[in-house]
Amino acid sequence: MKNLEKIFNPKTIAIIGASPKKNSVGWGLVKNILEGKDSRKFFYVNPFEKEIGGIKCFSKIGDISQEIDLAVIAVRAKIVPQIVEQCCRKKVGGIIIISSGFAEIGKEGEILQDKIIKLVKSAKIPLIGPNCLGIIRPSIKLNVSFAPAFPKPGNIAFISQSGALIDSIIDKSLSENYGFSFLISYGNEADLTLSDFLLFVNKDRQTKVITVYLEGLKGGRNFMKVAKKISKIKPIVVLKAGRTEMGKKAVFTHTASLAGNYQIYQALFKQTGIIGVETIEELFDIAKVLAWQPKCKNGIGIITNGGGCGVLMADYCQELGVNLVKLDSKTIQKLKDSKIMHPAFSRNNPLDIVGDALSKDYQIAIEALLKQKNIYGLLIIQTLQIMTEVEKNAKIIVEAKRKWPEKPIVCCFLGGEMTKKGVEILEKNKIPNYPDLKRAAKAMKVLIYE
Amino acid sequence: MKNLEKIFNPKTIAIIGASPKKNSVGWGLVKNILEGKDSRKFFYVNPFEKEIGGIKCFSKIGDISQEIDLAVIAVRAKIVPQIVEQCCRKKVGGIIIISSGFAEIGKEGEILQDKIIKLVKSAKIPLIGPNCLGIIRPSIKLNVSFAPAFPKPGNIAFISQSGALIDSIIDKSLSENYGFSFLISYGNEADLTLSDFLLFVNKDRQTKVITVYLEGLKGGRNFMKVAKKISKIKPIVVLKAGRTEMGKKAVFTHTASLAGNYQIYQALFKQTGIIGVETIEELFDIAKVLAWQPKCKNGIGIITNGGGCGVLMADYCQELGVNLVKLDSKTIQKLKDSKIMHPAFSRNNPLDIVGDALSKDYQIAIEALLKQKNIYGLLIIQTLQIMTEVEKNAKIIVEAKRKWPEKPIVCCFLGGEMTKKGVEILEKNKIPNYPDLKRAAKAMKVLIYE
Repeated sequence: MKNLEKIFNPKTIAIIGASPKKNSVGWGLVKNILEGKDSRKFFYVNPFEKEIGGIKCFSKIGDISQEIDLAVIAVRAKIVPQIVEQCCRKKVGGIIIISSGFAEIGKEGEILQDKIIKLVKSAKIPLIGPNCLGIIRPSIKLNVSFAPAFPKPGNIAFISQSGALIDSIIDKSLSENYGFSFLISYGNEADLTLSDFLLFVNKDRQTKVITVYLEGLKGGRNFMKVAKKISKIKPIVVLKAGRTEMGKKAVFTHTASLAGNYQIYQALFKQTGIIGVETIEELFDIAKVLAWQPKCKNGIGIITNGGGCGVLMADYCQELGVNLVKLDSKTIQKLKDSKIMHPAFSRNNPLDIVGDALSKDYQIAIEALLKQKNIYGLLIIQTLQIMTEVEKNAKIIVEAKRKWPEKPIVCCFLGGEMTKKGVEILEKNKIPNYPDLKRAAKAMKVLIYE
Repeated sequence: MKNLEKIFNPKTIAIIGASPKKNSVGWGLVKNILEGKDSRKFFYVNPFEKEIGGIKCFSKIGDISQEIDLAVIAVRAKIVPQIVEQCCRKKVGGIIIISSGFAEIGKEGEILQDKIIKLVKSAKIPLIGPNCLGIIRPSIKLNVSFAPAFPKPGNIAFISQSGALIDSIIDKSLSENYGFSFLISYGNEADLTLSDFLLFVNKDRQTKVITVYLEGLKGGRNFMKVAKKISKIKPIVVLKAGRTEMGKKAVFTHTASLAGNYQIYQALFKQTGIIGVETIEELFDIAKVLAWQPKCKNGIGIITNGGGCGVLMADYCQELGVNLVKLDSKTIQKLKDSKIMHPAFSRNNPLDIVGDALSKDYQIAIEALLKQKNIYGLLIIQTLQIMTEVEKNAKIIVEAKRKWPEKPIVCCFLGGEMTKKGVEILEKNKIPNYPDLKRAAKAMKVLIYE
């Protein structure tokens, strides 16, 4: 395993190509590095500027007297080889090349990329990129990227061959209550490969689930070995792009990868225990539930205050192979004895507690179902009626979760503005909520032991 | 065709069971009816209250001297037959029964429901319900329901066998920029059926697309005839619940419907030209695009500032049968000549204009592709980079749409908070945006002529 400690936990960073020009890549790097200024030292390198924001610029990395753990390069592709050479001479701990214009643009770029690889290999310096966004570790305030926003810390590692995707995912995550342990954009994968990153994040305690956006693999055999080992410890969820002929063509002009045959990938995922998904939405729907909730046996209960939604959820569960347990006569008796349930409550699973259900109804229903031994997890649906106590319902669910920590709960509070506060209460307590019933059913499915 | 004019455009309404008790159904009806107080007269009926909010309560409907177009009933199931009898005697124009506790709860309720049906049939008064939420027509400020919020006016009619669903959909629509011409909850379908509603909304000019949540059909043969005729004029999108054995069981306790065999429904949809969908999310994803954008031939262009997203979109398009047109040499030349495109722009469809694209790049790319004759529609992707001009990009797309009104545009601005303003600009101008690439591709697919 390669030593990536100096890249992912650097004490000193040099930004080569730092810029005062607003909204440029070099400016984005400067803006983001400042966030972690109390935790580490950083240096700007730019021969055309004296200072940026009051901080001195060095002409070249060799002029910095201190040791440099991580050198970040964001200059024109043509001069990258000479910059890399300077970094090697300086014996930096690791390099990230943000710049594009390498193998992904054809022959000319390939030659440049080959030059760089030779240099770093002989100097034994690990390299991320080129043609990437950089890396982010929110928990230690490390943001070596030009991403437009700072993500929240959390338990999801996202390793992506596409940089642009990372930016949008950060913005998305900020309004969806989940956070990251790592965000790694690796672009052309010229030196360090996906397998290296998997091995590194696997050792990280914060990381509970590993998500990957993949175009093409380098070193497939090694990847298989690594993925097989890690997926037994931490779930790996992969979105593979370039599944069709049109997609494959687009891959090649993007990261110069060979997308390969998707059937082969599907077989590979099966053999290595990787969870394959089809969309970005699904990637994080599933990551969220895996990061937040425990796994369970296949016996699920559904509680709903909307009959139609109960019907739909029952359909999705059966289609996905999620087993709906029959309610015990004891459970039904408990519900009846409460004298609070609406007389028309369904007495079945899905348990329909009827549209006018208040939080007290939810509380009794949740307790009764979780007490039934062969119900190992709950899907809770809330439609928004005029009397619905959104926030109280959320708090009751959080309470129940504390009492039965081993039984996963997945929610589907349906609505918009008026349900938002409830969703926030749920998700701040790591109970995932989905805006569509099928997405919630799929999330529950992934928690069930095969 | 039945005359539903007095139900859907009433000049006078009586609310039987109006209540001052906050968050009750009778209170919800009162609160909502007040919204339209300048457009029509309304009367409260409740023998136990003298007044509600300063407005007089009548003991029974017979005490009101004026003619009543629409009587809304929200009292205990057991006394509903005698109230219906009073309404028949009063010769009201139509009745909506909100109350539940009829066929959906078993034998006892069935007897009550039969009584009611006999009464209204012999009096020839059309009836919606029982066991429903009511009806809403935002454009004329008619809200005869206990829904917690007032939806925006728009071009989508939603006819739903489930009332609870309608409430959540309203809340959802308020944060997703679409509106409704009709919202009709029809519950147990004891008198008026889905076919009656289809015929009525078909005649409405505002309605451009008809969405349906369906559990079971009454009068299948008539429905086939009606749906076949209407779907040629206005698209009908149906979410059928109770597709599986577990779902069917849940349907029966919900609206006392027989869910039937899903294969038969699929055949029926095909024969009648109905678009069948699987989730609530899909129902409105598709309704929105059909309400807002024109149909086109199968030749689509993709513009993206994120290579990975271009790859994924190409995959979805191929999988769905959306044809990506090859870019003409003339189109590519135009892009090159602009001298604004990033040197690494992809020269292919998907057209990757690279991560640092500004609104000027989008403008040139959109113009060039729309000018190519055999490109009949555009999928536009925006990932969020530090330099991305979200709002400017949205405005440019709105401009382009004005110039080429016959070419549909579907967007996928990926992100959260920071992309929100752009999405609002797009959707206020009826250009649909989707938070996931596959959902955008599916929306484009539905616009393409078979």
